Amino acid sequence: MKAKAKANTNIALIKYWGKRDNELILPMNSSISITLDGFYTITSVEFKEDLKNDIFILNNKETEDKEQKKISKFLDIVRELSKVKLYAEVNSENKVPTAAGFASSASGFAALACASSKAAGLSLSERELSMLARRGSGSACRSIFGGYVKWEKGEKLEGTDSHGVRLLSEKDWDISILSVMVASGKKKVSSREGMKRTVETSPFYSGWLDTVEKDIKIAEEAIRLKDFYSLGNIAEENALKMHATMLGAKPPVLYWEHGTLEVMGHIQNLRESGIPAFFTIDAGANVKVLCLKENENMVYESLLKLSSVMKVLVCHPGSGVSYLE
Amino acid sequence: MKAKAKANTNIALIKYWGKRDNELILPMNSSISITLDGFYTITSVEFKEDLKNDIFILNNKETEDKEQKKISKFLDIVRELSKVKLYAEVNSENKVPTAAGFASSASGFAALACASSKAAGLSLSERELSMLARRGSGSACRSIFGGYVKWEKGEKLEGTDSHGVRLLSEKDWDISILSVMVASGKKKVSSREGMKRTVETSPFYSGWLDTVEKDIKIAEEAIRLKDFYSLGNIAEENALKMHATMLGAKPPVLYWEHGTLEVMGHIQNLRESGIPAFFTIDAGANVKVLCLKENENMVYESLLKLSSVMKVLVCHPGSGVSYLE
Repeated sequence: MKAKAKANTNIALIKYWGKRDNELILPMNSSISITLDGFYTITSVEFKEDLKNDIFILNNKETEDKEQKKISKFLDIVRELSKVKLYAEVNSENKVPTAAGFASSASGFAALACASSKAAGLSLSERELSMLARRGSGSACRSIFGGYVKWEKGEKLEGTDSHGVRLLSEKDWDISILSVMVASGKKKVSSREGMKRTVETSPFYSGWLDTVEKDIKIAEEAIRLKDFYSLGNIAEENALKMHATMLGAKPPVLYWEHGTLEVMGHIQNLRESGIPAFFTIDAGANVKVLCLKENENMVYESLLKLSSVMKVLVCHPGSGVSYLE
Repeated sequence: MKAKAKANTNIALIKYWGKRDNELILPMNSSISITLDGFYTITSVEFKEDLKNDIFILNNKETEDKEQKKISKFLDIVRELSKVKLYAEVNSENKVPTAAGFASSASGFAALACASSKAAGLSLSERELSMLARRGSGSACRSIFGGYVKWEKGEKLEGTDSHGVRLLSEKDWDISILSVMVASGKKKVSSREGMKRTVETSPFYSGWLDTVEKDIKIAEEAIRLKDFYSLGNIAEENALKMHATMLGAKPPVLYWEHGTLEVMGHIQNLRESGIPAFFTIDAGANVKVLCLKENENMVYESLLKLSSVMKVLVCHPGSGVSYLE
């Protein structure tokens, strides 16, 4: 009745942007990501006889009501699957620097899916774990797998074909991903709200859907061929498109700040000088930079010289979920 | 055979973005602008017996071949309309600070249309002058009129219904327009090329066309009611949409730099603090800010405090073309 698991977070190169089902968390489009080493969540789950409700402890602190409820709702799915009817104590250690704009919910729900299903006596395949993790947070379904991962959007209403698949192992292609934190104010619109408002009000959203599956094909082919330039290029284009769809929302959603543009301009300048480097940006002001390992130090040092850059974290493709103890 | 005219430049609040006919310069959508005081071109034209080609002198200097050709091509239209077959000497004094991102071609071709047609003995109505100016540069058709101006896109193939119309005189509503110059690199893509690439490759261009005529209606109504908040708000939304369409082009077109975002963020902060101020951005890094005259000094001073702002020019709605001498 007890299990512990570890999952890494991931960074999307072709973005998950828009839900077709809010309850089952089914996406409008497929997405592609890299699971990252070093930024992870370790979660233990124990179903206990004597509990009167679920308990969620994050980094040794009891969490707020809203987060408790999200975890309980997720555990309800596991209880339904397993016939275990007990409440659980969930203990999470989160090593994802959320200030860097990485989604701790991706590693969090991937680790929780593994630990809770095992603690409940279930023996799920990676694909089943991916679909379970998806119910907590869409991008978590990709963190079950290591390396380069595709989230197949699927077609079915009940979502049984919407899950992650491994495209290439982290061991087969090492590239560098630099997370660049820039001076910025508080995010005014959550990514969930930004996504929802865009789908509902932006005249550009249909243009996103019309072209994203083509972006997926280009990225898949680039990963297959280990063609860094092609992968970086389509990732940058895709991120710009995602942000463009938000600028058309009513009212517009703008996550970029001046530091964001300083980094974007710098990366485009690097590229013009012959260094293959590309950026991607999630729903926030920070920038992630992709480059070849041979240029990692040079790109890192050059980023630190920019006036609005506060911190740069370097990471690499990492492994999928694992069970501990 | 000689005439002299003066025209002010203008700033679009609902943008002209995309041509349906490159030769006649017919737009895909209607646009709305304010003609600005203080930033103008004065042009004299004289058709002379002894010239072997057209001569174009800009700010007391002979211009390059490319610009000469553009002027000659325009004068050919006037020669065709008037039966005058002589070459002309064109002398232009341009007081539009092009570094501020104002289109000197708007005031330039408006002044040229007036001076050249009069010198050729034609007596054109404002509407005819607007259609003639349009042939030199689309936005020039709006500078024939003062104050708040709409460029009706028209429907006809030959463009005889595509011209400016006055919505409201500059004397009837004074607001402040601040042109904010930010530190920036050289523009890598001309606005003509940015427009063309967007129309041809961006999946968002149809979303632009689907919504811009609604923006026009909102702006027209705001001008009719002198509703500053509504006009500023739709202008800001429309500018963001125009830039969004470019982010979807292949390759993407990004005119913003870090200073652009610093000003945008500042204006949104001002607004949150209760000052009605809005921005609009053309195909470049600089920003134009709209505010009420009562807040002009405060907004001006606050902009000068931003680290990336180099200069701020203040202007107001100005008059249409006039003949000199």
